[in-house]
Amino acid sequence: MDRVNFADRLMAVIDKVGTPLCAGLDPVLERLPSPIVDRAFARRSGPRAAADALGQFCLRVMDALEGMVPAVKLQSACFELYGRHGVAVLEKLVREARRRGFLVLGDVKRGDIGATAEHYASAYLGGPETAPGRCTAGFGMDAITVNPYLGPEAVQPFVRACERFGAGIFVVVLSSNPGAELFQRGPGRALFERVAVEVDRWGADLVGQCGYSSIGAVVGATRATEAAGLRRLMPRTPFLLPGVGAQGGEIESLAPVFDRDGRGGLVTVSRSLIYAHESRPGVRMEAAVRQVARRLVDQLDSVREQRRGKRSGSKPAARGRAR
Amino acid sequence: MDRVNFADRLMAVIDKVGTPLCAGLDPVLERLPSPIVDRAFARRSGPRAAADALGQFCLRVMDALEGMVPAVKLQSACFELYGRHGVAVLEKLVREARRRGFLVLGDVKRGDIGATAEHYASAYLGGPETAPGRCTAGFGMDAITVNPYLGPEAVQPFVRACERFGAGIFVVVLSSNPGAELFQRGPGRALFERVAVEVDRWGADLVGQCGYSSIGAVVGATRATEAAGLRRLMPRTPFLLPGVGAQGGEIESLAPVFDRDGRGGLVTVSRSLIYAHESRPGVRMEAAVRQVARRLVDQLDSVREQRRGKRSGSKPAARGRAR
Repeated sequence: MDRVNFADRLMAVIDKVGTPLCAGLDPVLERLPSPIVDRAFARRSGPRAAADALGQFCLRVMDALEGMVPAVKLQSACFELYGRHGVAVLEKLVREARRRGFLVLGDVKRGDIGATAEHYASAYLGGPETAPGRCTAGFGMDAITVNPYLGPEAVQPFVRACERFGAGIFVVVLSSNPGAELFQRGPGRALFERVAVEVDRWGADLVGQCGYSSIGAVVGATRATEAAGLRRLMPRTPFLLPGVGAQGGEIESLAPVFDRDGRGGLVTVSRSLIYAHESRPGVRMEAAVRQVARRLVDQLDSVREQRRGKRSGSKPAARGRAR
Repeated sequence: MDRVNFADRLMAVIDKVGTPLCAGLDPVLERLPSPIVDRAFARRSGPRAAADALGQFCLRVMDALEGMVPAVKLQSACFELYGRHGVAVLEKLVREARRRGFLVLGDVKRGDIGATAEHYASAYLGGPETAPGRCTAGFGMDAITVNPYLGPEAVQPFVRACERFGAGIFVVVLSSNPGAELFQRGPGRALFERVAVEVDRWGADLVGQCGYSSIGAVVGATRATEAAGLRRLMPRTPFLLPGVGAQGGEIESLAPVFDRDGRGGLVTVSRSLIYAHESRPGVRMEAAVRQVARRLVDQLDSVREQRRGKRSGSKPAARGRAR
């Protein structure tokens, strides 16, 4: 294994920064501050300019949140939209995020069988290799999201890659969208519960010293009702929880996900965090992002305090850029 | 709509070329003829050289099959492995394939919700746009594969894109791998059957003059037992049938997929076709590929003749490069 167990790295950086908040970088051109877009299109044109603008924006969000959040989640689709230019920017952002000390999750939702899954795993979780025999661009992400629909063959190559690279995956178990029910529930025992049982099993050999596995699960933050049951089915699985804010999920409802040490969940917030400038005219972008992040961190503090069996409200020691 | 209905274009090109065979381009460096690899690595190094080698190889497979098969399916993972260099080659291959008259399917198995799905749809199905407001690299593929696990929200943005771009999708219904059973079947009514019912519904507004819809289904060619039932659930859905050859699927077993005009299926063959040179030492790569293609075309002729209610063996008029 090139690096230490992903779950251990995840828990360590959450402990260090003091909060399990992940910034979701889903940059969309029409929502970026116009000076960033104007500058990019003054220099270049077309997809290349657009990709540059996304890159600049994400760097500024990272600048704002360095030391305040332990992880960023990059939405691959936003970059794929600009083809090779977007992918080049994505590669660069992964490097920059890691340099700043963030754990980097790639929201790629890949899932395919055999050699195809191996390619995806090497592409996103492996590092770059230049030897002709085993050469790959290797984004070197710390973890990615994986779609389980195709079955074990679509997940196991990623599990093996986690072992090889000290990386992690988050298998989509129960997504945050209302229509998720249609296939993820269904008749008999809900499919998402059956997926959950498998996720727990796939992670059995990758449990770190922290007690959690490198094989995580995506569970919508809108799924508070199911969260406790899923936690029981996947006691050692880190949960990646999207859907807070724009999609209606509430941090307050997520207590059952966390253990008595306040661990086990990583809440990822995208639009309501990175576009904080939209509702704060006159406030510098970085400051607006930090304001929202601070509020989210406070909410997460309360929830985790609750799980620790203490009264909420007693703030832990000051944090900020002190990482 | 920019282009005519995808299903109509699919059926037209199958009729013109005379066979529903699709060449699966899943290029893997270690299986390419060594002169192609050596030449690429003599000029460049690392992922860029590897991507160039894949590109050269795919162009030669296309040269070999031009006029013999109506469609190519590009496996995105093989190119993503080489990051931006791979994606640049993929973009170029899509253009080259279209220039040669092939219908281009992108095997990307994307699936996500909301704006993310819209990005994927625009990226792969839309054409390039340079206007700052709506700029995208736009691969301009004719169709892509889509993963339905996240539910209608993960498919409908693609359906809308099909309408807008005259494009198609193939929703993964029942995949070719043995482990597909685990989630795609399950207790109660099998999930893949419930997905099939939805696929038929999603395609209702996109039925072309040919009687088939632009919303297709991936059904493993290893799934002959389920094929007839799935055809009944999805009477107007084009089936994309992978898994012949290396995965054990047999063309002979696929008759129930085709209608009485021999239409409704597109059989995609990858490794056993594109690596034909491996088992034919001394034969030029292009010739080896054509030998295998000819055998597959003959098998498909028999199966479709069977469906037409005629005795198999009566070959249709000669085809070849006469497109």
